[in-house]
Amino acid sequence: MKAAVWHGKKDMRIEDRELRELKDTEVKVKVAWAGICGSDLHEYEHGPITVPVEEKEPLTNDKAPFTFGHEFAGVVEEVGANVKGFKPGDRVAVNPTLTYGNKPEGLDIYDGFAFIGLHTDGGFTEYANVPATNVFHLPEPLTLQDGAVVEPTAVAVQAIKESEMSFGDTVAVFGAGPIGLLTIIAAKAAGATTIIALDLSETRLEKAKDLGATHCINSGDSDPVKEIFEIAQEGVDVSFEVAGVEPTFRQSIEATKPRGMMVIVSIFSKPIEWNPFQLTGKGVRITSSAAYSPSTFQQTIDLMAAGQLKPQGVITDQIELDDIVEKGFEALSNDKSQAKILVELSGEK
Amino acid sequence: MKAAVWHGKKDMRIEDRELRELKDTEVKVKVAWAGICGSDLHEYEHGPITVPVEEKEPLTNDKAPFTFGHEFAGVVEEVGANVKGFKPGDRVAVNPTLTYGNKPEGLDIYDGFAFIGLHTDGGFTEYANVPATNVFHLPEPLTLQDGAVVEPTAVAVQAIKESEMSFGDTVAVFGAGPIGLLTIIAAKAAGATTIIALDLSETRLEKAKDLGATHCINSGDSDPVKEIFEIAQEGVDVSFEVAGVEPTFRQSIEATKPRGMMVIVSIFSKPIEWNPFQLTGKGVRITSSAAYSPSTFQQTIDLMAAGQLKPQGVITDQIELDDIVEKGFEALSNDKSQAKILVELSGEK
Repeated sequence: MKAAVWHGKKDMRIEDRELRELKDTEVKVKVAWAGICGSDLHEYEHGPITVPVEEKEPLTNDKAPFTFGHEFAGVVEEVGANVKGFKPGDRVAVNPTLTYGNKPEGLDIYDGFAFIGLHTDGGFTEYANVPATNVFHLPEPLTLQDGAVVEPTAVAVQAIKESEMSFGDTVAVFGAGPIGLLTIIAAKAAGATTIIALDLSETRLEKAKDLGATHCINSGDSDPVKEIFEIAQEGVDVSFEVAGVEPTFRQSIEATKPRGMMVIVSIFSKPIEWNPFQLTGKGVRITSSAAYSPSTFQQTIDLMAAGQLKPQGVITDQIELDDIVEKGFEALSNDKSQAKILVELSGEK
Repeated sequence: MKAAVWHGKKDMRIEDRELRELKDTEVKVKVAWAGICGSDLHEYEHGPITVPVEEKEPLTNDKAPFTFGHEFAGVVEEVGANVKGFKPGDRVAVNPTLTYGNKPEGLDIYDGFAFIGLHTDGGFTEYANVPATNVFHLPEPLTLQDGAVVEPTAVAVQAIKESEMSFGDTVAVFGAGPIGLLTIIAAKAAGATTIIALDLSETRLEKAKDLGATHCINSGDSDPVKEIFEIAQEGVDVSFEVAGVEPTFRQSIEATKPRGMMVIVSIFSKPIEWNPFQLTGKGVRITSSAAYSPSTFQQTIDLMAAGQLKPQGVITDQIELDDIVEKGFEALSNDKSQAKILVELSGEK
């Protein structure tokens, strides 16, 4: 079957790839839609970053090349002998996160994790065999396309949960890429009042405004911290660092109230120079967010099904698998107006 | 009256200094004992760091030179016309922290603060006039010498409160100087079980063991994080960074459990190079502690009076004012066996 297979940096090939055998504990999913994630893009532009190429990844027992794509949804085609709770025809979203399962839910991810579609074969193809424990029912009225945005939305929902944000809080989101935009949407759904979006791109800031940001600040045009203090006099209750660079790290602390929380959502690719005295002086606390727990994944589906969380606005394009390099990866690299691009796979509705 | 007056780096003079006029809202304290703090030492060795020399400090409306000493206790000599609750002869400890008082207690310190004895005249002399709101009664059975260690002990009590440490938790303290030792004592009093002390000095580690550390690790002899994991398999619940340097910053995060807390207690004098991804990967949260609230100061007195908190073990020497440079500042600079040195002032018992 046709698949988008990562072979190396700038080397994503559309090629024929055989589906490995279905295990007794797995579900065979006919993939309808799969989103391109920032992690996919990083591996395309600068990889291998986390993709195993020399040695097999311990959790997946696999190494590249393999089919990318970890944000996907589809229809159950077949179930393994020991699988209960799923039958052919069920509409499902896939939680691509694999863990050892040796620790309680909130801690399990810190014991090591891997991703279906980054560390073993994923969803940029027609069929995927995935553990039944990673498969979640998609209730009405959610579409299969909705299902493909559950995963990145769950990242934002987890970030809000880690932030200890309260109903009515003021929030700043540094970085209005796909995860930043979803964080804005999730903060709104969780009851934030003032939501300040910051980015260097006007296009992205316009999108942020469309999706619920009450204020937009172009960090290139002004002193962003000063601007935030003009909006939230004491600083914001919670800030989300979704840009992953030194200036936004410092700004997100500086813009937060004493005893407020700064949440690291982004993946910092390199060290920063920073004086921890900034925390002592400001009294801001720092936490971080990594992926999401299975409960958060389910809550995300529930919130979307109830209409409380509407992440669909981040979708900026729908493309075909054959176009994934040009209209997918290259478009995301070069066009700031792109946020979430979905790839149509089997045509399943 | 004779006073230890800071004139600049390595320039602490014993000289005659006049006591400024008592205000209606102030209490005149006859100083019995005053401790030398790490901040005093930093200003002596490398100052001016926070001491105002060019312009007046806004809260104190004062600039150097002035009498140092901010950890002190004594006997009320006289009270200002508007002061209630104090009378001559009362035994008191002084909370040297001055704030604007415009914010609620836990947040007030982050709105700006100054210290009696670092930013205006302090306690290394016979008498000090201080605001009545900064004066706290010393109940029986506390001695005036006990009163002089309330202030640094309150720093440790605040650090424990900020850490969200629970009864029975495991704790690591990076740095066994005076505040590190007091943090060990406070952690024990708050019900920590395993308390791991880390330092480069064997002498300090021996002291840490005497004062309640259950395990001591010399970070120069071994991989301290590995050693901690041999004691606390999953990492510690809470770590305290009381050394203020790059390696201990990283180690204190690395040694802490996912979703555990790392508390910055030390003052970092320069930036570090650090990748925030360490937090994302470990799932450790960071907070900081700055001085103490007035409530914490009172709680420290109460805990000491009840015998639950016994900080007196950190006192390593008692000296006279004339010897403050040689037997005080220079001894602390050169002799790792010194922790808290108290200066006897008026001879008041």
